[in-house]
Amino acid sequence: MLCLQCPTNAEWIAVANAHPELILLDHAHCEKKAAAFALALINRYPNRTKLVNEMIGLASEELEHLALVMKELEIRSIVLTRDKGNAYVQALHTHVRPHEPLRMMDWLIIGAFIEARSCERFSILAEHAPTEDMRTLYKSLLASEAGHYRLYFDIAREYFPEADVRARIKEFGALEADIIKGLTNLPTMHG
Amino acid sequence: MLCLQCPTNAEWIAVANAHPELILLDHAHCEKKAAAFALALINRYPNRTKLVNEMIGLASEELEHLALVMKELEIRSIVLTRDKGNAYVQALHTHVRPHEPLRMMDWLIIGAFIEARSCERFSILAEHAPTEDMRTLYKSLLASEAGHYRLYFDIAREYFPEADVRARIKEFGALEADIIKGLTNLPTMHG
Repeated sequence: MLCLQCPTNAEWIAVANAHPELILLDHAHCEKKAAAFALALINRYPNRTKLVNEMIGLASEELEHLALVMKELEIRSIVLTRDKGNAYVQALHTHVRPHEPLRMMDWLIIGAFIEARSCERFSILAEHAPTEDMRTLYKSLLASEAGHYRLYFDIAREYFPEADVRARIKEFGALEADIIKGLTNLPTMHG
Repeated sequence: MLCLQCPTNAEWIAVANAHPELILLDHAHCEKKAAAFALALINRYPNRTKLVNEMIGLASEELEHLALVMKELEIRSIVLTRDKGNAYVQALHTHVRPHEPLRMMDWLIIGAFIEARSCERFSILAEHAPTEDMRTLYKSLLASEAGHYRLYFDIAREYFPEADVRARIKEFGALEADIIKGLTNLPTMHG
């Protein structure tokens, strides 16, 4: 994954595999929040037509994924619990620059990083998750997450000079790596 | 439409037809907010599995409709403007009872009323909108909005005794009629 400057801690997968039900529950909320984030970008930037159209498609895909995760939960007789929030995403948000248009660039880059990190976690789960059906699920979602990373990057390049976007991705890559390294290994998608 | 206790003011369609572009712009935001409302219900009631699954499907349909409205806007070279809020929906929200589980019933009933009133407005636009493509658009969306009204009603009946739901729909019907009559005729979907 182009923009990630550090891999996930090697210990995370053991923690995740000890609690596959918590991973699925957190994953459901991640998909829901990814759809909500896309709607929030439409709200903030309604006159950026390419962004709006792409966010509609992206939100729809996130909802399809949420439906898949809900099926996995149902198979295991697990009922969705309350969303506990996402410390990783909240930490990323603290680095958004306060003034437009740079704020918009940062939101798009945060979108790209969340998708990129999710894609990396999915690739780990696709190989090491404890059951065949979970490995199949994460294999099936991998390409889509990589596509979403690319989508955010492409939208950013549509509205900002590519060199500026690449420079900010580099800066954010260092911030994101610090955030990931600073998190305790938790049985959550970005924990 | 079963639950509506008054029809739209006869003057509204002339106001709407004087500003078809404002109707389409407001409609786009209505679809976006309908999807966001469905996600908010998932957030509030994650352990109500039927509700969660139905809201995922409903949000996806609202996003499909948003994409259709965006195409209509694009054909007319209209760029989406900022969401100006929806006085009708805000007025409905003030009647939500503060304590669970009645609050949940009220949210579902508000969902039903918004869909029912939208369906009624779409039926007016399907007949009287100023262009053939707008009439076709609203004809194509009519059945879906009626289905969404029914969906909210069915979810409410899943979690609450049907007699209680029907009684509250009757009460809300009177409140909704007062709100609709109290609004100035505006070129918005619920204005």
